[in-house]
Amino acid sequence: MINFQTSPDQYRHWKLAIDGAVARLTMDVQEDETLADGYKLKLNSYDLGVDIELADAVQRIRFEHPEVRAVVITSLKPRIFCAGANIYMLGTSSHAFKVNFCKFTNETRCAMEDDSHHSGRRYLAALNGTASGGGYELAIACDEIYLVDDGNSAISLPEVPLLGVLPGTGGLTRLVDKRKVRRDRADVFSTLAEGLKGKRAKEWGLIDDTFATSKFQESIEERVAQIVNLRSDDKTQDSILRYSGIKLNPLTSTDTSDSREYRYVSLRFHRDKRYADLTVQGPDCRPRMTADEIQAMGDDYWALRAYRELDDALLYLRVNEPEIGLVCLRTKGEPINVKSLDDELVANRDHWFVREVILQMARTLRRLDLTAKSFFAIVEPGSCFAGNLLELLLASDRSYMLNNPDEPFEIAFSELNAGALPMSNGLTRLQSRFLSEPKRADEVLAQSGGFDTEAADEAGLITFAPDDLDWEDEIRVAIEERTSLSPDALTGMEASLRFAGPETMDTKIYGRLTAWQNWIFQRPNAVGPNGALTNYGKPTQAKFDYKRT
Amino acid sequence: MINFQTSPDQYRHWKLAIDGAVARLTMDVQEDETLADGYKLKLNSYDLGVDIELADAVQRIRFEHPEVRAVVITSLKPRIFCAGANIYMLGTSSHAFKVNFCKFTNETRCAMEDDSHHSGRRYLAALNGTASGGGYELAIACDEIYLVDDGNSAISLPEVPLLGVLPGTGGLTRLVDKRKVRRDRADVFSTLAEGLKGKRAKEWGLIDDTFATSKFQESIEERVAQIVNLRSDDKTQDSILRYSGIKLNPLTSTDTSDSREYRYVSLRFHRDKRYADLTVQGPDCRPRMTADEIQAMGDDYWALRAYRELDDALLYLRVNEPEIGLVCLRTKGEPINVKSLDDELVANRDHWFVREVILQMARTLRRLDLTAKSFFAIVEPGSCFAGNLLELLLASDRSYMLNNPDEPFEIAFSELNAGALPMSNGLTRLQSRFLSEPKRADEVLAQSGGFDTEAADEAGLITFAPDDLDWEDEIRVAIEERTSLSPDALTGMEASLRFAGPETMDTKIYGRLTAWQNWIFQRPNAVGPNGALTNYGKPTQAKFDYKRT
Repeated sequence: MINFQTSPDQYRHWKLAIDGAVARLTMDVQEDETLADGYKLKLNSYDLGVDIELADAVQRIRFEHPEVRAVVITSLKPRIFCAGANIYMLGTSSHAFKVNFCKFTNETRCAMEDDSHHSGRRYLAALNGTASGGGYELAIACDEIYLVDDGNSAISLPEVPLLGVLPGTGGLTRLVDKRKVRRDRADVFSTLAEGLKGKRAKEWGLIDDTFATSKFQESIEERVAQIVNLRSDDKTQDSILRYSGIKLNPLTSTDTSDSREYRYVSLRFHRDKRYADLTVQGPDCRPRMTADEIQAMGDDYWALRAYRELDDALLYLRVNEPEIGLVCLRTKGEPINVKSLDDELVANRDHWFVREVILQMARTLRRLDLTAKSFFAIVEPGSCFAGNLLELLLASDRSYMLNNPDEPFEIAFSELNAGALPMSNGLTRLQSRFLSEPKRADEVLAQSGGFDTEAADEAGLITFAPDDLDWEDEIRVAIEERTSLSPDALTGMEASLRFAGPETMDTKIYGRLTAWQNWIFQRPNAVGPNGALTNYGKPTQAKFDYKRT
Repeated sequence: MINFQTSPDQYRHWKLAIDGAVARLTMDVQEDETLADGYKLKLNSYDLGVDIELADAVQRIRFEHPEVRAVVITSLKPRIFCAGANIYMLGTSSHAFKVNFCKFTNETRCAMEDDSHHSGRRYLAALNGTASGGGYELAIACDEIYLVDDGNSAISLPEVPLLGVLPGTGGLTRLVDKRKVRRDRADVFSTLAEGLKGKRAKEWGLIDDTFATSKFQESIEERVAQIVNLRSDDKTQDSILRYSGIKLNPLTSTDTSDSREYRYVSLRFHRDKRYADLTVQGPDCRPRMTADEIQAMGDDYWALRAYRELDDALLYLRVNEPEIGLVCLRTKGEPINVKSLDDELVANRDHWFVREVILQMARTLRRLDLTAKSFFAIVEPGSCFAGNLLELLLASDRSYMLNNPDEPFEIAFSELNAGALPMSNGLTRLQSRFLSEPKRADEVLAQSGGFDTEAADEAGLITFAPDDLDWEDEIRVAIEERTSLSPDALTGMEASLRFAGPETMDTKIYGRLTAWQNWIFQRPNAVGPNGALTNYGKPTQAKFDYKRT
């Protein structure tokens, strides 16, 4: 079982040091501390275990150290920044694991950019040595990249020439879409195993600057000081600097053979039927709190706790329950309590902690959108699909709402449905739903009351509204049908239907780039007995079938 | 060898009838007239041969029958519109062929939409019977869809539930992005093998209307009459209606074992080195013509002839030369003559024929962008990379321009580089190149003179400018290096780097949807011994590995 929870005192590969407004995140991968057997993490190469720590560190900076304005990512290894994903790990992993590994590492890099974009922290990649493959992809997820000029250190994306696969952790997309490197130069760089050193790399826009070894540390510190000073002039930052962070305590769960129960989220596995129930318990009723009171609750605050649990549950399902193809999303509680909580969040959204909580909810919901499992929302009396939890329904591939006039109940919107929890494509889930009638999204949002089953059906908010007599049969048959289909075809279908409308750099990474990488990860030229990934580091050489496809 | 050329008198599967402003394109697939052995084209199912005729018909309507305002696509088979791509053909095809087949059918459907969008012809799908899979995908590429209500006929996308693959000819993307069907309904529809009949299909926005059998023909004719009348009120259409079309005569080529020579385009195959030279001969010097004079030249007009040949050459390379991984693009002629021709095209662009010529050039260049081979532009003295032919350089993955001060020569822009020949993502190739400096695109366009090698290098228009002494070695090594790389990694890399910036429905089809489909086309759940595609129509049943990836 892979555990996605960690904390700085448990890190084996990273060191997180906070110094006032500066966080230093230093990579020092221990080559024997691997997540699986059969490979060593040499030269600061990484496996999923290393990236779980990085993801945790980014998350902790946001919640535990809100005063941080600049994050410097560097390495403790001399002349090596990071050699990227470990090739032997990739070579010995199953296809499904490779795909899930890449997805998680992509999400970690997008989380860094999310922090930069929404919370204003500036990420600096201080490349004290060579950054190859995923090492450069980690750098390009930062806002600024500085490379030491020691006559030797280079940046490179050697995946295509050496391994016959893509720089799939966003590398190719960020080259041309984020740094807007000219496509012919991107082509040259991505086929050049040895990469480029400082001067040419800067000229081509692949890094921001290069400094001689003797000046490197000093130049990074100067730039960090500039950022911190600039930011402390920014009066809007005052409120952040006045507050200290909250502590993210470990999530606990009670696990049995067929269930996993967190405080607010529970999973029940029906493995023989290849589906799981995921139920979120909504917040309790209580008086409205001030921002300070909310912060005083820290990670006990429902919105943070429940979504951290949901995030962990999604990752658990992806990696530890691969045969579960369908997740039935359910909620338990009072819609009015969810709406009150959302109103509280909206009223305090300028407070750093509340902002981070909302951003964390949004990231978790995007993790759901990007999960390669089907989701059905099952909406019954006693549920609380309102406000932020209504996003679970809107994120689902389908929704079923019981229609029993004797026991009416409602789903409802809050202001959080209006833009605070966007999908990767920049739209709200409601906008995605009503692409053909953009006004409809505004109309339903404007309705302050809830929608009972008939009204929800009428408004186009749910897929099916079976009545009491048919309910159980209909759900059972829907589950049986869904889980009988080809899991691969469903993955491709859901990836296509969930992201109508505009595309962004994020959706290009998870759509175009990832789909091509997954294709290549299946091709004999990469993973067959003569494939480049299989033969890497062996005395044998790759032999290609040169047919272009 | 697969031949992409045909004409209506040679059609075996389609009938093209022109009646004033109405074209009727009727599908009547002959089940034994297949392109390969091992399958029968039952129920109006299609193979590449059927689609080559459809592509030809759309092209001929545009050039030979510009007076046509409405195109009705229907079937001669009772109760069957079209059953989509033939499953047994797919089941017996190589991966590379399947991928190329899907790409071509996608391009044909995009060509119909291009005609609708730019030339104002309205495409009507008159579904006189069931349209399943690719049959419905053909319909959804039309502007309007009408389904007979005979108690039996349905539309469906049964790929996911029956075959374990995607509706990959644009189906999934057009459902949510073109018709903007609600994503949960799209999910239900795409997993429902039997599809939906008229009433529900209309309610969900999958068709525009449904008519009883007895009224079907009459209702279609009424709608066609409406379109034709509406369009003939449009005064801007006058110029079209006054002209009759031109004839598209067959292209001829002289083929040897290592070359294929058209009039203006020539291919030389270096199969042992896995690359080809593709050379385009530019136009001759001659006085400026009027629109009527241009039309009088018909398909002898350089811009039409050369680009039809280029189009054919690209298709030939894709399907008949799969092991050729790199195409070196060269031109021969005077830059000034290309610029004069472009000026002539621009001066007459309101004329229907000139407009169609330019649109055909744009489609051919997009076919190049979407070709899964590397392209290097080789720019030497005697070449004419100017105006429309400069797009070949801008479309290339890299360009090499000889730098010999003793023999200076130039590349140059014309107004056609400013927007008339857009990529699938809606940008010009120059905008794509200078995403980081949008003003640069305008600056180079504003320069009326040409760019010699130093100036071109300085302006960022070329990748490399080797000098005379290094030239031959550098080109040779670049070719050797490129053709040694994994062809699959190159395909994925080029698909990522060529399309920076915005995405459109077209790029989503060729990027996201196609990449997922290609992945699925490799998966054992589709094509393994127990896969759904392999077992379709056999007494054995598919058995899936249910791990979600």
